[in-house]
Amino acid sequence: MPRPGGIASFMRLPIQKDTEGLDACFVGIPLDTGTSNRSGARYGPRHLRSESPMRPFNQGTGVNPFLSLNVADIGDVFVTMYDLPEACRQIKRQYSDIVKTGCIPLTMGGDHTISYPILQAMKEKYGPVGLIHVDAHPDLQDEVLGSRIGHGTPFKRAYDEGLLACERVVQIGLRGTALSENDCNIGRISKGFRVVGVEECWYRSLTPLMQEIRQQMADGPVYLSFDIDSIDPSYCPGTGTPEIGGLTTIQAMEIIRGCKGLNLVGCDLVEVSPPYDHTGTTAFTGAHLLFEMLCVLPGVR
Amino acid sequence: MPRPGGIASFMRLPIQKDTEGLDACFVGIPLDTGTSNRSGARYGPRHLRSESPMRPFNQGTGVNPFLSLNVADIGDVFVTMYDLPEACRQIKRQYSDIVKTGCIPLTMGGDHTISYPILQAMKEKYGPVGLIHVDAHPDLQDEVLGSRIGHGTPFKRAYDEGLLACERVVQIGLRGTALSENDCNIGRISKGFRVVGVEECWYRSLTPLMQEIRQQMADGPVYLSFDIDSIDPSYCPGTGTPEIGGLTTIQAMEIIRGCKGLNLVGCDLVEVSPPYDHTGTTAFTGAHLLFEMLCVLPGVR
Amino acid sequence: MPRPGGIASFMRLPIQKDTEGLDACFVGIPLDTGTSNRSGARYGPRHLRSESPMRPFNQGTGVNPFLSLNVADIGDVFVTMYDLPEACRQIKRQYSDIVKTGCIPLTMGGDHTISYPILQAMKEKYGPVGLIHVDAHPDLQDEVLGSRIGHGTPFKRAYDEGLLACERVVQIGLRGTALSENDCNIGRISKGFRVVGVEECWYRSLTPLMQEIRQQMADGPVYLSFDIDSIDPSYCPGTGTPEIGGLTTIQAMEIIRGCKGLNLVGCDLVEVSPPYDHTGTTAFTGAHLLFEMLCVLPGVR
Amino acid sequence: MPRPGGIASFMRLPIQKDTEGLDACFVGIPLDTGTSNRSGARYGPRHLRSESPMRPFNQGTGVNPFLSLNVADIGDVFVTMYDLPEACRQIKRQYSDIVKTGCIPLTMGGDHTISYPILQAMKEKYGPVGLIHVDAHPDLQDEVLGSRIGHGTPFKRAYDEGLLACERVVQIGLRGTALSENDCNIGRISKGFRVVGVEECWYRSLTPLMQEIRQQMADGPVYLSFDIDSIDPSYCPGTGTPEIGGLTTIQAMEIIRGCKGLNLVGCDLVEVSPPYDHTGTTAFTGAHLLFEMLCVLPGVR
Amino acid sequence: MPRPGGIASFMRLPIQKDTEGLDACFVGIPLDTGTSNRSGARYGPRHLRSESPMRPFNQGTGVNPFLSLNVADIGDVFVTMYDLPEACRQIKRQYSDIVKTGCIPLTMGGDHTISYPILQAMKEKYGPVGLIHVDAHPDLQDEVLGSRIGHGTPFKRAYDEGLLACERVVQIGLRGTALSENDCNIGRISKGFRVVGVEECWYRSLTPLMQEIRQQMADGPVYLSFDIDSIDPSYCPGTGTPEIGGLTTIQAMEIIRGCKGLNLVGCDLVEVSPPYDHTGTTAFTGAHLLFEMLCVLPGVR
Amino acid sequence: MPRPGGIASFMRLPIQKDTEGLDACFVGIPLDTGTSNRSGARYGPRHLRSESPMRPFNQGTGVNPFLSLNVADIGDVFVTMYDLPEACRQIKRQYSDIVKTGCIPLTMGGDHTISYPILQAMKEKYGPVGLIHVDAHPDLQDEVLGSRIGHGTPFKRAYDEGLLACERVVQIGLRGTALSENDCNIGRISKGFRVVGVEECWYRSLTPLMQEIRQQMADGPVYLSFDIDSIDPSYCPGTGTPEIGGLTTIQAMEIIRGCKGLNLVGCDLVEVSPPYDHTGTTAFTGAHLLFEMLCVLPGVR
Repeated sequence: MPRPGGIASFMRLPIQKDTEGLDACFVGIPLDTGTSNRSGARYGPRHLRSESPMRPFNQGTGVNPFLSLNVADIGDVFVTMYDLPEACRQIKRQYSDIVKTGCIPLTMGGDHTISYPILQAMKEKYGPVGLIHVDAHPDLQDEVLGSRIGHGTPFKRAYDEGLLACERVVQIGLRGTALSENDCNIGRISKGFRVVGVEECWYRSLTPLMQEIRQQMADGPVYLSFDIDSIDPSYCPGTGTPEIGGLTTIQAMEIIRGCKGLNLVGCDLVEVSPPYDHTGTTAFTGAHLLFEMLCVLPGVR
Repeated sequence: MPRPGGIASFMRLPIQKDTEGLDACFVGIPLDTGTSNRSGARYGPRHLRSESPMRPFNQGTGVNPFLSLNVADIGDVFVTMYDLPEACRQIKRQYSDIVKTGCIPLTMGGDHTISYPILQAMKEKYGPVGLIHVDAHPDLQDEVLGSRIGHGTPFKRAYDEGLLACERVVQIGLRGTALSENDCNIGRISKGFRVVGVEECWYRSLTPLMQEIRQQMADGPVYLSFDIDSIDPSYCPGTGTPEIGGLTTIQAMEIIRGCKGLNLVGCDLVEVSPPYDHTGTTAFTGAHLLFEMLCVLPGVR
Repeated sequence: MPRPGGIASFMRLPIQKDTEGLDACFVGIPLDTGTSNRSGARYGPRHLRSESPMRPFNQGTGVNPFLSLNVADIGDVFVTMYDLPEACRQIKRQYSDIVKTGCIPLTMGGDHTISYPILQAMKEKYGPVGLIHVDAHPDLQDEVLGSRIGHGTPFKRAYDEGLLACERVVQIGLRGTALSENDCNIGRISKGFRVVGVEECWYRSLTPLMQEIRQQMADGPVYLSFDIDSIDPSYCPGTGTPEIGGLTTIQAMEIIRGCKGLNLVGCDLVEVSPPYDHTGTTAFTGAHLLFEMLCVLPGVR
Repeated sequence: MPRPGGIASFMRLPIQKDTEGLDACFVGIPLDTGTSNRSGARYGPRHLRSESPMRPFNQGTGVNPFLSLNVADIGDVFVTMYDLPEACRQIKRQYSDIVKTGCIPLTMGGDHTISYPILQAMKEKYGPVGLIHVDAHPDLQDEVLGSRIGHGTPFKRAYDEGLLACERVVQIGLRGTALSENDCNIGRISKGFRVVGVEECWYRSLTPLMQEIRQQMADGPVYLSFDIDSIDPSYCPGTGTPEIGGLTTIQAMEIIRGCKGLNLVGCDLVEVSPPYDHTGTTAFTGAHLLFEMLCVLPGVR
Repeated sequence: MPRPGGIASFMRLPIQKDTEGLDACFVGIPLDTGTSNRSGARYGPRHLRSESPMRPFNQGTGVNPFLSLNVADIGDVFVTMYDLPEACRQIKRQYSDIVKTGCIPLTMGGDHTISYPILQAMKEKYGPVGLIHVDAHPDLQDEVLGSRIGHGTPFKRAYDEGLLACERVVQIGLRGTALSENDCNIGRISKGFRVVGVEECWYRSLTPLMQEIRQQMADGPVYLSFDIDSIDPSYCPGTGTPEIGGLTTIQAMEIIRGCKGLNLVGCDLVEVSPPYDHTGTTAFTGAHLLFEMLCVLPGVR
Repeated sequence: MPRPGGIASFMRLPIQKDTEGLDACFVGIPLDTGTSNRSGARYGPRHLRSESPMRPFNQGTGVNPFLSLNVADIGDVFVTMYDLPEACRQIKRQYSDIVKTGCIPLTMGGDHTISYPILQAMKEKYGPVGLIHVDAHPDLQDEVLGSRIGHGTPFKRAYDEGLLACERVVQIGLRGTALSENDCNIGRISKGFRVVGVEECWYRSLTPLMQEIRQQMADGPVYLSFDIDSIDPSYCPGTGTPEIGGLTTIQAMEIIRGCKGLNLVGCDLVEVSPPYDHTGTTAFTGAHLLFEMLCVLPGVR
């Protein structure tokens, strides 16, 4: 089928309702009511799928993941857009189902709020997980505008609830403006996270960094949460809270490819906001990165 | 000052914090978490102001409202984006202050949720009000996706709480698709509203209709709620739930100009979604309509 | 499911491979190599689906077609983009299958070339068919730049092959520039078609015209071919060969609603070119018109 | 040559340096420093040409003007962008050359400032001319921000210098906001112009109006100055000072077609601002209207 | 207040008319009639403000400038758009007022013409100043199209009038095409400026360069003039004369952060052209760089 | 003439029909029916010309090529869009004419299909040529969707027909997804090409690579085929098959400048797709690179 053809499931994969028999699945969460700045990420899953008709062989890593894994698109989880705490409960419940057979979800956001209930489901299945969090922002606030649930707080909630193996947490790409000095370093100072500010990434390959991170993560279960705003807005303008001086897409691929060998139990790609993505560049970058994630899952040869 | 110059208050009017001494004020509500389809209306107030540097004399109606009224831009009300019921309480509280001296608010939305708490404040000050509701949708659902607060329910809530003088309510421009037959006619059938479906508007001037509506409204207090999606998307693409076959901007002006002589106590212009308004056309149409509203307020000569 | 959610089949209908058990189906043809001016219509099916999450009840006509008909999205037909005559053969073959059980295809183009092989399949099943052809251009050229297959020639090919019941053919909306005087009137002069130039449509409802056309069409099988460029570019900028002074979307709905009662055997909506449709307005207009077509199919109550 | 092909002279006409042997010519003036609101019209000529590859036969009027007239594209006049009075002198000088053999210039603006020096050249050749001025704005201010030359003043300058036969002047389409009551009616009140406000145009064909205007113009030389902002921004968003409630493109064609039989000595189409014209709709509308002008020139059969 | 809320003064700072009591101020100049290529920069100040609601703490440099400095937005200076020499005189006059109390203006352009009259006011207050000029173009032409005032000439005028301490001038980022060999090196050859062509910047951090420049600037007063077109168009497409192969935003931040410790007396950020900045990326990059400038002003701890 | 002025031949060069007396020429091929993903490249030549009004002196290389070479724009070759094999024959025939006097064509695509017939003409004139092929994709497939002619096959066809001196072929920038492992390395494995995958290019200047390539090319005739999708989509979003992780524009200039001294006999710049190039950045990047090619042709001093 030519690339413009076919109903747009992710990479035009088979569509099925549940994760029965799957090693991994693509799944969307069309939610953006946790957004503090520019909205629009509710349409992330649809546009990521629309820009995803790539080919199956990854030239950079030399693998065709579909030869090793059974993968499908299971559609979107149902989620209310009007009540964030309820939305989180809905996500948690559905993800418990998704992961119960060991299927690895590759989630298309949606705003970053969604990582919190996903991590709840992960904890339930795997215990506290290591976290590779790629982002312009730490998302560790205790509350935003009076709300404890939102896209600025998911990892604070996760921390509070013991979902994370804190010594196996790293945040990469932090930058920009903040309310106070603490904002950025809070992960490092009070929680024992490794924090890699974006200045440490400028002008260099992140392949050496990932070697260190693989050691940090060891053999335990690891969750990869990738906020598209970690990447510079020249590559990915279609996001809600862009910050200049960000990662390159080359570095983004190095980070993901550097996860090869880890015990990844789930991944997400969040904050693609299609209304600000006029040429689809952000969506196809996000789709490509989701494919790169698939290519480093355990079991891919 | 040339049109591109100056800080963008509405029409570059003086900015003041409260409504002390004002006959009317422009005020924004940067909220879009009540949206069910395309988000973005949170940026409505900023873009309406940005496209508002018109001149003071209205050639169509022959008035300069600033010669009769004392008007200012009082900025935006504070509102959380993460908790719709709380947001409504915040709006209600601040509008009680705005209207307490009799100042008439011209509100820049924001999604249509906001009309509900504004009407609460109106009721408090004026008793139940007549309503001229211009919209593609009736916004009379009892709940949307399990939520009783949202941009599909404001007038149901207002009806339930007795905020409306039901015999003095009219809905103009309804059309499109619905969940069931009842959706569209519910206002007419069970609430005694006058409903003017868009088909009644096609190919004709609405000046005669407005004559009837002025009679319906009589001398009581009237609130004008104008959803920009009432207008056809050829004129106003920048909105969240566009529907084809809508009103023209000529008809929109006829509706507003037809309100001259009514006892207007408040007006809103909602659902301008800047991310879908690439050339600013929707925003400057909205800004012009807000100016037309100002020109028909009581006291303008 | 909220509108932004779910995998984008047309109106998020069930997806199935064949037309077994269906009264009607939506089907796409991602082809634009028959285009003479601006390309891009190959992405029409994907974007029409993406903008199609409407609700099931049509307020204008008062019907929910899904209560009467069994409908699914059967995906896209396979088609080469590099060899137009071969593409036509592929389409013809697959449409023969689609219509063999009497299922009515609602086709999402693609450029207008595709109506030719669809009409071949229609003829095979139903004999020569009546044709309601809504378009800015007659598409009756004998060849374009040396090629006999392309989006300027489908109805000439259909005529040549006896696919049309010529006395039951009407063309509505023709206008613009042409190579010579004959171009526009060729249908009327030499083929016995009724031709309704756009000037006859200006400033008036087309409901009376459709009454005449229903008489012209009588009880025989009728095919409705709707080129989105028949509509004025103010409504539908996203098309390959726009012409000013076109139909309104109101007239477009009147034409389709005026087909109620006809023996429709197939419909298409062609020439939506997403790269020129920045806000999705053309795609959701096209999607809405496809839904209007569904609402007038035989059997809908 | 397919429409996308060929170097973009207007309609891909022959290019020549002067007007030797020509009945009419297309010519551009890439100037926008007379603009008061949104700039960009300096790129009008390039984009009008780019969107101009139409076909030679006008189906609406039934003529191919190239069978009667010798027409070429003579490129752009040279003009400084930094000194408006000097730019006007440059334009005047070059237009004196253009019209000296009786060639009729069809000018692609550029902002409306340019009509002033063109009218100077017209007066020199033909004496005071009649004027059909289609615009949202009267452009009759005495000065703008302290400057007597600019796109708000051309017809005041023309009036002051006796370039116009005032009893044969009409302004069509005026609307919007102004500095004072006088702004709009100044032409009617103090200069004897006929002024047709846009409200007189709503909901009706302008064909009858043009019959009156043909009588008003009689046999004398007539200049047609068409500001694209006369047309509603739903059709033509790409302009510097859009005003809602404008003419339709159908009315625009009626106005131009209604000039058939007049002694037209020159025409312009101004204020196309490509940066605000994302899909090219404004430019191809402007290009089509320039072609319609060509089709009504004296001598076209 | 959420980021979408509030009237858009720069960073939503207090608005005041004059510089009384201020250490620094943001101020706009809505002028683009000095532009030679694509216009639009007249809307720079409005869009820079619109995209400026950042937070107060700069994570990269570790400072909150508002804790050390008293800062406000003083709106736009009044400026005619029709007469460049007069516009320069107006700017000069108003900047003399702005700087008279030692307040440091951070100017939002507008095209680069404006640096000339600003430098006149600087000279008057501080004597000849050092200049850090970041730009794709040298802006040292003696005249452009016959005009001595324009965005290609400000530093030639400044040089001619002795406004610069020539041994303390550096130009960074020059590249692209020119009229002749002299164009680019004129600053180095005949004026004693340091010129850092963009090729010297490729692939490397500019932190070492800035160390040299701090030495060059010594303790004297320094003016920083930052043309957004110095940055590569992949980051900042919204500008009038883009040139490929430009600086990165990382380098832009290194340049500005490298100014820490200098005796900065004024800064500007010019040539943001909103009509070419569809997603706001250029404007928010410019706004962030203005904030970075604030963070390195004398007195910030 | 100011940059916005003048009819848009490439760099506003003289236009002539044939290559008589020319050292080099710019020529367009408005064809995109060989495209497999997003179409639109048929408008490449028009938009490259539209964005080409640069100045004549190249600051990076220090040459003005027009002082050494006689150059013109010869317009577009005629080409059908409906029959790819016939289109190739048409191109071949016209290029045989173009090169017969030794004129070097700088071709504006169009999709990459066109390099195949151009190479046929090159072979005829010069024998098998060396090839510097800069691209994200190898374009070495034997057939695509059943077709042997298309933008995925030109170099396979050229290889099959002996048009290439295989030991003097290099492919630079390959990356992305493929159908199988062979896809990418096929050139290296079975044809003896040098293949430089994009990973070899990351983080480094390509100047050293070009030194090696100059040795590889030696003194024989060389053709440079530059697919704009070799460049990262952050720089050049306007192309049909973008792939992340691509070359920078700096590297693109290094590649072209590194061809100085080679016996270049022809160059092309293909796959600019204007509908996806909203700000013109891709087109002006392509135009600048074509100018860089002109600057390294034999004979330029």
